[in-house]
Amino acid sequence: MSAPVVGIDLGGTKVFGALVDHTDTDAPRVLEVEKRATPTTSAADVVDAIVEVVKALDPAPDRVGIGTPGVVAPGTGEVLRAPNLPGFDKPVPLGAILAKRLDTTVAVGNDVNVAALGEARAGAARGHRDVLAVWLGTGLGAGLILDGRLRVGPAGLAGELGHTVVVPGGRRCGCGGAGHLEAYIGRRALEERARELHDGGRPTLLVERAGKKRIKSKAFRAAYDDGDDVAVELIDEGLEMLGIAVANAVVTVDIGAVVVGGGLGERFGSLAAERLRTSLQTLRFAGPTPEVVEATLGDDAGAVGAALLAASTD
Amino acid sequence: MSAPVVGIDLGGTKVFGALVDHTDTDAPRVLEVEKRATPTTSAADVVDAIVEVVKALDPAPDRVGIGTPGVVAPGTGEVLRAPNLPGFDKPVPLGAILAKRLDTTVAVGNDVNVAALGEARAGAARGHRDVLAVWLGTGLGAGLILDGRLRVGPAGLAGELGHTVVVPGGRRCGCGGAGHLEAYIGRRALEERARELHDGGRPTLLVERAGKKRIKSKAFRAAYDDGDDVAVELIDEGLEMLGIAVANAVVTVDIGAVVVGGGLGERFGSLAAERLRTSLQTLRFAGPTPEVVEATLGDDAGAVGAALLAASTD
Repeated sequence: MSAPVVGIDLGGTKVFGALVDHTDTDAPRVLEVEKRATPTTSAADVVDAIVEVVKALDPAPDRVGIGTPGVVAPGTGEVLRAPNLPGFDKPVPLGAILAKRLDTTVAVGNDVNVAALGEARAGAARGHRDVLAVWLGTGLGAGLILDGRLRVGPAGLAGELGHTVVVPGGRRCGCGGAGHLEAYIGRRALEERARELHDGGRPTLLVERAGKKRIKSKAFRAAYDDGDDVAVELIDEGLEMLGIAVANAVVTVDIGAVVVGGGLGERFGSLAAERLRTSLQTLRFAGPTPEVVEATLGDDAGAVGAALLAASTD
Repeated sequence: MSAPVVGIDLGGTKVFGALVDHTDTDAPRVLEVEKRATPTTSAADVVDAIVEVVKALDPAPDRVGIGTPGVVAPGTGEVLRAPNLPGFDKPVPLGAILAKRLDTTVAVGNDVNVAALGEARAGAARGHRDVLAVWLGTGLGAGLILDGRLRVGPAGLAGELGHTVVVPGGRRCGCGGAGHLEAYIGRRALEERARELHDGGRPTLLVERAGKKRIKSKAFRAAYDDGDDVAVELIDEGLEMLGIAVANAVVTVDIGAVVVGGGLGERFGSLAAERLRTSLQTLRFAGPTPEVVEATLGDDAGAVGAALLAASTD
């Protein structure tokens, strides 16, 4: 069990792999990394790219872990639907295909979930056995580590915090639901709302600077720092809603540490962490306030977490 | 491991014990029950009553499980605070005291949590490994069974669904929080709100019939069935809020079945289950709608769950 393990973060733009030494279970180390552009052609080509990255890291790997977008059927390694990957709009038995191609044990998990496992075991929340990681990116992803293990759930849907209701009957979410957290935080929802307000007659640096181009996380931070009314209002509201949803999750399952990461999360890391601490102090029902920390593994979190998932699979 | 186990439901008014045969782990059976009034004098007298009930069921028990009000320190069996029991306003090492007195292994859990375990393993949700049980009583309690095991959490606080926020800045909860679920459902909150509305000039059968006496769960059901405006409005709103909180928990941890029980839960069982099904169909993000079932073990749930907790303790 002490041979290094390969972890793969399968993304829409790149296949990122890491060879991870987990001899010291409390301090896994990345020995080597490798990447390829994600093919845009077919699922078979995506599989080939993964095999290439794995073999470049270890020609005869002991175990391989994969973090993938989309929903993974619990236990089987089948990716049910990952619209951002070519050919993954229908179920792909990724675990079984790779196990055969690589002649080894393969564990497959959701990308957001395995990144949470990475930060819990080897990153910001090391030492905690009960961790909630929230990723503020284009949307709002999250993963739960309970009693030291990744929580998957019977449908493979644990951690969908972005689709919990924070305002009954509130703002419309991309999924069609009303008042979901993801309608208030995440780059896409913030941009949509900023453009609506701008079109409704409220001037904002966000739209004036970006024009018709995407408003990036960096631009939200700049406008926030410049005191732009709309940026301040939207970010403050979004972080308040995040605080409610995180406090609700903490009260529901009892959590020792909360990790904040993701693209937008990095730009607003210390502010988001500070606001979450305040929310948890006010909103948690009883017991100690969970520790709130910023993610530390950066782009490695997914690959490291995938490796740790593989290492912990029976 | 196949000897029968004693489970005790330690309540504010009675100490209720059951001798449980768990040879068939999928269908535990209650062999015998026993009860005493809960002493109102001291913690020592409460311990004596528990010992009496245990010994009446089994003079030399293999294992004993206790479900107690209040917060139980994880792993230690220490009851941190249970204001409804005499002498339990400060920490009582109940597990250690009973283990010594009974010369056996003793497991201690929160009463609401162990009752959830009872319904998950031996009652309404048998066969499901991921269960949320909600108890509508004086307040709103809940317990989570994840991957077949009772979720306790690092602070012993898992399952406090009554203190999740359903309306930001909403109605004041008994704990001081704003917009908590327990401010909208549970007999006490419903009575307070009915009296407020009555005092504000809205006539209601609830107050007219009860006068200054407590408005019982039965009275809420009667007024609801008689079409009383205030009763219908409060119950409908409460069940809507329950639906939001339950959907949020389902989305957060991924749950296969939801159990509804408790005193008020029994009176409104089929209505509450029906409303929860509708809420979950509308509000859950993706995946199959969890099964929603009414509790079936009645007053036995706590004692049976306590026995199963003891049976599953290493």
